[in-house]
Amino acid sequence: MSMGGEQGRKVMSAFNVGLVQMRCVANPTQNLAKAIEGIRELAKDGANVVGLQELFLTEYFCQQEDPGLFELAESIPGPTSDALGAVARELGVVVVTSVFERRAAGVYYNTGVVIDADGSIAGTYQKMHIPHTPLYREKYFFAPGESSRCAFQTRFGKIAVLVCWDQWFPEAARMAALQGAELIIYPTAIGFREGERMRMGDAKAEAWQTVQRGHAIANGCYIAAVNRVGHEGSPNGGITFWGRSFIADPFGRVLAQAGEAQERISAAVDPGDVERQRQFLPFLRDRRIDLYAPLAQRLC
Amino acid sequence: MSMGGEQGRKVMSAFNVGLVQMRCVANPTQNLAKAIEGIRELAKDGANVVGLQELFLTEYFCQQEDPGLFELAESIPGPTSDALGAVARELGVVVVTSVFERRAAGVYYNTGVVIDADGSIAGTYQKMHIPHTPLYREKYFFAPGESSRCAFQTRFGKIAVLVCWDQWFPEAARMAALQGAELIIYPTAIGFREGERMRMGDAKAEAWQTVQRGHAIANGCYIAAVNRVGHEGSPNGGITFWGRSFIADPFGRVLAQAGEAQERISAAVDPGDVERQRQFLPFLRDRRIDLYAPLAQRLC
Repeated sequence: MSMGGEQGRKVMSAFNVGLVQMRCVANPTQNLAKAIEGIRELAKDGANVVGLQELFLTEYFCQQEDPGLFELAESIPGPTSDALGAVARELGVVVVTSVFERRAAGVYYNTGVVIDADGSIAGTYQKMHIPHTPLYREKYFFAPGESSRCAFQTRFGKIAVLVCWDQWFPEAARMAALQGAELIIYPTAIGFREGERMRMGDAKAEAWQTVQRGHAIANGCYIAAVNRVGHEGSPNGGITFWGRSFIADPFGRVLAQAGEAQERISAAVDPGDVERQRQFLPFLRDRRIDLYAPLAQRLC
Repeated sequence: MSMGGEQGRKVMSAFNVGLVQMRCVANPTQNLAKAIEGIRELAKDGANVVGLQELFLTEYFCQQEDPGLFELAESIPGPTSDALGAVARELGVVVVTSVFERRAAGVYYNTGVVIDADGSIAGTYQKMHIPHTPLYREKYFFAPGESSRCAFQTRFGKIAVLVCWDQWFPEAARMAALQGAELIIYPTAIGFREGERMRMGDAKAEAWQTVQRGHAIANGCYIAAVNRVGHEGSPNGGITFWGRSFIADPFGRVLAQAGEAQERISAAVDPGDVERQRQFLPFLRDRRIDLYAPLAQRLC
């Protein structure tokens, strides 16, 4: 296998990606145990790569701005990455998720972590697009990441991790693809606020899937989004997380689709298909990199 | 109405956009007459803006590389823009299409044209992403455009024209939105090659729509794609253009959908919805313009 530049390497074999869509409770120990159980079950069924939802260790705490919540943050490497690393090594699977990272006093991130099948950390990525909308008060908690480097070589393929709000940004998916990602995994926490579904039906959830299928098509790669389920927060408010985790191929076709309850899904990812799709629809050849400077502006 | 920067202007009223999906024949005069008839019919039904398909004046000549075909090119302003300008002025409608432009001996473009409701040319845009795949030999005919400027103020709203292959590139739609486009119109010529549908079903046509719905979502704007229909080229080869013109709203919901035969469709475009959607999902606020330099690279 030539090592003359990662992008020129030999195409790797197909592998299976599985996603653990779960409900979270207040107790992190229980969430970690449930996630590890999900990894074990998926590995038993043949998964080589497992994606866990965003901030799976806790409830989605960003609904309120409370400085006491920073206590939930931890270092990377740290307890959660160590625990997942041990399971990854034991089962020989890659694990991808997001962790509330404490890098220093006052500097916290929402960090995507890719753990390789030997238990080592293949890479981390600090979420770069930070939302701040009612009940998603993330700008209070997370410093925006300083780098778009999100794709990491693993035993089974080059995998990018992008986190939740990133999934609405074509720029993020494109940079992942340009880094060589064959599969982009999006750990996610998204749902309906009180009354939102009544007002606009499934429009938001459907747009959420469509825009990500669009990224798969535009980049000729696989996409896997893994979201939590259940209601969290005030009974008369809060968020009902909509689940609907899915895996899509380079044509944007949905290969596996979860509902709105706890569920595990999986599908095959073939890096050969990524290459064939990009030959069939050669977008990366035709990008006008000489004209894209305005993309780095707020408005043109 | 404040003129202090176009992006700060007052939100305009809703308007109707209509699309003429038609079959083309060898004789340009007949195609022009049919297109003008379509404009008249749509205007009669209340359309304020009408989109015509890519290179509607002729058959899709890019199936073969023949220097004689450059004879089809014309200047802008020129006969076609003059004829459309006269109809636009008479009916008080905006007309958007693509013309095979001769700018100089040896310099030809596939040019999007936006004709304002007073018959003047609001702007032209030279297609920037040029395909070259079997039967779509456009790199032979068209110089790639030198500018991403594609959105132009018209009587009814700020409208961008992007052309066919552009529709697969998130960068193009993003730049249109950053220029203030509330509606992006894609004149198009796309279809199935011999056997393609048998091999991959509707995957390509569905991906074509999904990726454009994704642009509408990512940018919080309206999208209208207008494609030709019918078989052109060798009876045992050639292209069967799939029609399926459509209009989508900022949630990516399909408001109007054509089939695979000659048809006119229309829908309402509300610039107020563009603003409300971008407040609801504030992606343009959160773009990481400090991290997007890699988008201007071939690979990262």
